Amino acid sequence: MTTREELINDLKRVREQSPLVHNITNYVVMNNTANALLAVGASPVMAHSVDEVEDMVKIASSLVINIGTLSKKWVKAMLLANKAAHKKGIPVVLDPVGAGATPYRNEVCAKIMEEHCPKIIRGNASEILSLSLPSTNTKGVDSLDKAEDTIEFAKDLAYNYKSIIVISGAVDHITDGIRVVKIKGGSPLMARVTGLGCTSTAIIGAFAAINPDPFKAAIHAMRVMKIAGEIAAETAKGPGSMQLQFLDVLYNLSDEDIINHFQEAE
Amino acid sequence: MTTREELINDLKRVREQSPLVHNITNYVVMNNTANALLAVGASPVMAHSVDEVEDMVKIASSLVINIGTLSKKWVKAMLLANKAAHKKGIPVVLDPVGAGATPYRNEVCAKIMEEHCPKIIRGNASEILSLSLPSTNTKGVDSLDKAEDTIEFAKDLAYNYKSIIVISGAVDHITDGIRVVKIKGGSPLMARVTGLGCTSTAIIGAFAAINPDPFKAAIHAMRVMKIAGEIAAETAKGPGSMQLQFLDVLYNLSDEDIINHFQEAE
Amino acid sequence: MTTREELINDLKRVREQSPLVHNITNYVVMNNTANALLAVGASPVMAHSVDEVEDMVKIASSLVINIGTLSKKWVKAMLLANKAAHKKGIPVVLDPVGAGATPYRNEVCAKIMEEHCPKIIRGNASEILSLSLPSTNTKGVDSLDKAEDTIEFAKDLAYNYKSIIVISGAVDHITDGIRVVKIKGGSPLMARVTGLGCTSTAIIGAFAAINPDPFKAAIHAMRVMKIAGEIAAETAKGPGSMQLQFLDVLYNLSDEDIINHFQEAE
Repeated sequence: MTTREELINDLKRVREQSPLVHNITNYVVMNNTANALLAVGASPVMAHSVDEVEDMVKIASSLVINIGTLSKKWVKAMLLANKAAHKKGIPVVLDPVGAGATPYRNEVCAKIMEEHCPKIIRGNASEILSLSLPSTNTKGVDSLDKAEDTIEFAKDLAYNYKSIIVISGAVDHITDGIRVVKIKGGSPLMARVTGLGCTSTAIIGAFAAINPDPFKAAIHAMRVMKIAGEIAAETAKGPGSMQLQFLDVLYNLSDEDIINHFQEAE
Repeated sequence: MTTREELINDLKRVREQSPLVHNITNYVVMNNTANALLAVGASPVMAHSVDEVEDMVKIASSLVINIGTLSKKWVKAMLLANKAAHKKGIPVVLDPVGAGATPYRNEVCAKIMEEHCPKIIRGNASEILSLSLPSTNTKGVDSLDKAEDTIEFAKDLAYNYKSIIVISGAVDHITDGIRVVKIKGGSPLMARVTGLGCTSTAIIGAFAAINPDPFKAAIHAMRVMKIAGEIAAETAKGPGSMQLQFLDVLYNLSDEDIINHFQEAE
Repeated sequence: MTTREELINDLKRVREQSPLVHNITNYVVMNNTANALLAVGASPVMAHSVDEVEDMVKIASSLVINIGTLSKKWVKAMLLANKAAHKKGIPVVLDPVGAGATPYRNEVCAKIMEEHCPKIIRGNASEILSLSLPSTNTKGVDSLDKAEDTIEFAKDLAYNYKSIIVISGAVDHITDGIRVVKIKGGSPLMARVTGLGCTSTAIIGAFAAINPDPFKAAIHAMRVMKIAGEIAAETAKGPGSMQLQFLDVLYNLSDEDIINHFQEAE
């Protein structure tokens, strides 16, 4: 779907334009997220108060909403920012962290998606499966216990909401409702560093800020994660060094690194 | 009180069962705590909203309450989650961070302990000394300015609340009100990394989730901290590398590491 | 303005006295800030609830207010703590993170400064330029688009508020309204690690706690940042290792390091 050259070109644009990515994210990963955005070349800003999120959206190039550590006021701010971003026309990326764990998380995701569905949603398989199709949707889903079903459900979500759905895992699956791109690479150690999933959502925000095609932006971001993770894992001895190496590698990622580690999508 | 074999066995169980540890903890250490729980093999989740803490407890195997950065709504959620965990019968571990620094912290600890006293409480000497015996307690405590007195007071707390009290320090003291186990090891550099105390509380949560004996769970967790800290300090050059090494060591901790670094308790 | 010997002496005093620095700061940097304060030898505490900030100020040696992730309740606590610190006579340091990005941030800074202006304010050029002179001030500022103008405006701020203004950047400028000290050193990599600006504000808090002259305290802190950053960058390979090295270097900073890396101020 996308070529190495397009990825190299988009990474260059992120570094040159340094887009401001407004994050309303969880307490656990704020530091990592900010560091990863800086490392890839973007400008992170975190702001969550209803007193300023709309103003922050005004100067931002994309908005990332992550529901990892929710509470009522934060949800209110997420909805306000989502609306402002929609009105302004900048891309919104949603990370439904822990969807499925509690009814509250499911409700908040449904509310955000019903009001103005984010252009891109990234989660692991169980989080994506916990999202709801539009209430107007009539297509039934009988069983979702197989990987195949997860992808089919993600396609339904993407198609109905006109959004890009990213299911991240050992192999990432990215769909616009019709096409499905699979991305390999990375390292099992990535799952042992807290917040690398949230980081990938933020990096999608950076690429979506500079590429008007959200499908390509999502693919580029997930590729960068896989490539940087793979290189970082070569020298990491555990999750502590993995976290450090990942930032160093992301910061230094060269065209050659991309060429050497790029795996053709299936 | 516990053998090397029991510790090795319980660490193996944490890694195999990967228990979900629900943390309501402070902003400063959330990232470290999540990373340490992942490194030891557990599954961390952070959730603090009154809208979901009870639901999160439903799927958790233990609950960790840490009062490091308090506010009214968080306290409300702590009390709700504590009650739900008590009802469900999963172990609760309390970290009274900064108890003694402000009256508010003391009051919150007293309230949590009076309602449903957590199975295990871990703090440094001054934090433990700031906790209150049950209001129905009549045993007077005259002076508490010596280390001996601290341990006596901890025994009183443990005995009255039927809880395990852990006083962490250069030497950890763990008591169930009758027995006192002393654990040596670790490194002075551990005190220069923020949140390693909070990390040990979270690790207790992981061991308490897989061992129904809270005394043994506390001992195992504190031993793992001491052993991992000792090994990490061998190559650390300061608090930055200590933090990284600690996670790497914890993740890779082998039976041999435990055998080589295990110090018999006094 | 200050000599190497004064800096060496003050760093020694921070390490010996280990002053308690009370931080009301943002979620993104809390962990780094705490670690940097520990590394330099101070004692960090984070507390933000209106239920305890005044009590925490009572036992603190300085107060650091950082507006990075604001909300109404936090602002209320900042104002309470600022007032309590003023009454008690301990130094307050303000970090106007993101001032200029939203009207809300500007208003909050203005309110804090009007009520009891912090002794020291540190920000980058655009943040400092977004601060307001006292409402009673009549001196007009026509244009502020040149570096020269920024320094002139900072001098106005310092003079009117009787505070020290620190403009950090590739070269730091520190003014008391009359004098301007320029400090060189550091590394461009420092800007790629999130929160090193916030860290410098916290380190100012540590030096202000042990030196009654806020001008000297600010200079010492900014020098320590530049020197530690410069040494850390020598071996850092990216922002991940930079963050680690910075803490290790800060912790191990020797008289010899200071002597070798001290650059005379202009």
